[in-house]
Amino acid sequence: MPSSRTAPRRAGIYLISPSSAIADAAALDLAIQRLRALGHPVAQDRAARLVHQRFAGTDRQRVAGVHRALKQKHPVVMATRGGYGLSRILPAIDWRAVADSGKIFVGLSDFTAFNLALLARAGACSYSGPTAVFDFGAPEVDELTRDLFQETLSGELQVLSFEAPGADAVDARGVLWGGNLAMVVSLLGTPYFPQIEGGILFLEDVCEHPFRIERMLTQLWHAGVLQKQRAIVLGQFTGYRLVPHDNGFDLAAVVHWLRRAVRVPVVTGLPYGHVRVKAMLPVGAIVGLATEDGMAHLLLNEHDHAAHHGD
Amino acid sequence: MPSSRTAPRRAGIYLISPSSAIADAAALDLAIQRLRALGHPVAQDRAARLVHQRFAGTDRQRVAGVHRALKQKHPVVMATRGGYGLSRILPAIDWRAVADSGKIFVGLSDFTAFNLALLARAGACSYSGPTAVFDFGAPEVDELTRDLFQETLSGELQVLSFEAPGADAVDARGVLWGGNLAMVVSLLGTPYFPQIEGGILFLEDVCEHPFRIERMLTQLWHAGVLQKQRAIVLGQFTGYRLVPHDNGFDLAAVVHWLRRAVRVPVVTGLPYGHVRVKAMLPVGAIVGLATEDGMAHLLLNEHDHAAHHGD
Repeated sequence: MPSSRTAPRRAGIYLISPSSAIADAAALDLAIQRLRALGHPVAQDRAARLVHQRFAGTDRQRVAGVHRALKQKHPVVMATRGGYGLSRILPAIDWRAVADSGKIFVGLSDFTAFNLALLARAGACSYSGPTAVFDFGAPEVDELTRDLFQETLSGELQVLSFEAPGADAVDARGVLWGGNLAMVVSLLGTPYFPQIEGGILFLEDVCEHPFRIERMLTQLWHAGVLQKQRAIVLGQFTGYRLVPHDNGFDLAAVVHWLRRAVRVPVVTGLPYGHVRVKAMLPVGAIVGLATEDGMAHLLLNEHDHAAHHGD
Repeated sequence: MPSSRTAPRRAGIYLISPSSAIADAAALDLAIQRLRALGHPVAQDRAARLVHQRFAGTDRQRVAGVHRALKQKHPVVMATRGGYGLSRILPAIDWRAVADSGKIFVGLSDFTAFNLALLARAGACSYSGPTAVFDFGAPEVDELTRDLFQETLSGELQVLSFEAPGADAVDARGVLWGGNLAMVVSLLGTPYFPQIEGGILFLEDVCEHPFRIERMLTQLWHAGVLQKQRAIVLGQFTGYRLVPHDNGFDLAAVVHWLRRAVRVPVVTGLPYGHVRVKAMLPVGAIVGLATEDGMAHLLLNEHDHAAHHGD
């Protein structure tokens, strides 16, 4: 399996927009300033601010932006934002070239399609984490998000620990994969869905009612995906609204059902999602996961310790 | 392939609630009155009005309702409403027994999971069409919906013709299948998704933004489903709201993209969906489809004419 890539602390960052058009140019300007202030040289692809309908340029322009990112000098390639747009262009991206570029890709939400397609088509690792506009173009940059970004990028972060009240007992090791639940599910049945067994699947979503979250989890269950994982790690599910008709059906009810139906350990509380505080997670890397005393520990860089585990 | 079943014009109707809880008991009462006034004896399953969270009873209670429907005397089994709930219970339903019962099942929306699972697991035909509460419990029953229900049920309706402005030229014959787009897609990759080649796929949805409609169509495309069909027939897509950020991206843009990407004839205008005027469509039956002069004609009961087509 692939391992996660790391870069020097002040690695150069190249910005691309493979999904939705930038709605707030000033926020992107601010993000660039902020990333530079952290010591990163920053360049933006010439298509990064294009607009075609709701997309950041036509399909052809967005694909060209991805391919240009492989050939420029900066080691890190960050999506300016998520939204919608990668689904359409997955067949036009040269995944082997993406993998061979050695670049470190990071994005969120719609970018899950990129993370998983890269893993499925070329077996390569990339990151799910902050995006330029949402995280570095915000009125205030979240300090933890910033630190996790910097330390994950440089490989300094060995263990990501977080409060996981009520987590099932886990002590596992496997391929970390996942992302935005709707995007993960949107690849099921296609050549862009990675076939991972014994993995650690992490999920988040925004503006999806718990019944839709459950329907998506049910699909992953019926497709045989959930029951093949060592653990399911739930990030933040936000932005939905319960209605009186729900009558006690809420996210806790979904998680309760999930545990009973699937019988794979579930860990909640991952700082990840459409929220301010978010980790940067290596999609496709082998990691460890352990829970203890209401805390969960995600052991990154597990490839360094493979010998200790005997496999 | 299976053929559609028909029943006498005054066939008895048995009501079940495999999905969401009835929110408006008076509307269900009214529906029962209305169906009786049309000459149908009507009975309701004893679990039809149960409430558990947002569901019409627990999973076990809803499954039991489906199985009781197989053994009662009325030939038609109608869902009281859609909503959400079938996904969870698909593995618990005895699909062979459902097929062997000889009953005529009809429902909409969430009921798509029932239609497609029955076709996938047992090769049997059922209907997508009116539900008790929405269609017969409405303040006014739509006359066309009522007539299409009566005439389809009895087999009197031979051809369903509708205005299809801008439809691609089609003269095809194949298995009619589909339903609610979100529900169709929610079965991809699972054992409940029918493997239909050379079919006529019909779709509708409600409260899904065009970008989500497109993302779902893209999944069906990447999964190899769309390009194996003889035609894609679009019903009504309603209840979504465009925003300034869409910037010209709308349902027409999605259909335009669909035609270019998939290169399968697309027919729009099917009177079907979360709308008042809806056809009752045999899911799993062989039908004909032809377009001419801005009209589309769906030829039901094509099994009667199989000899003329040489296959």
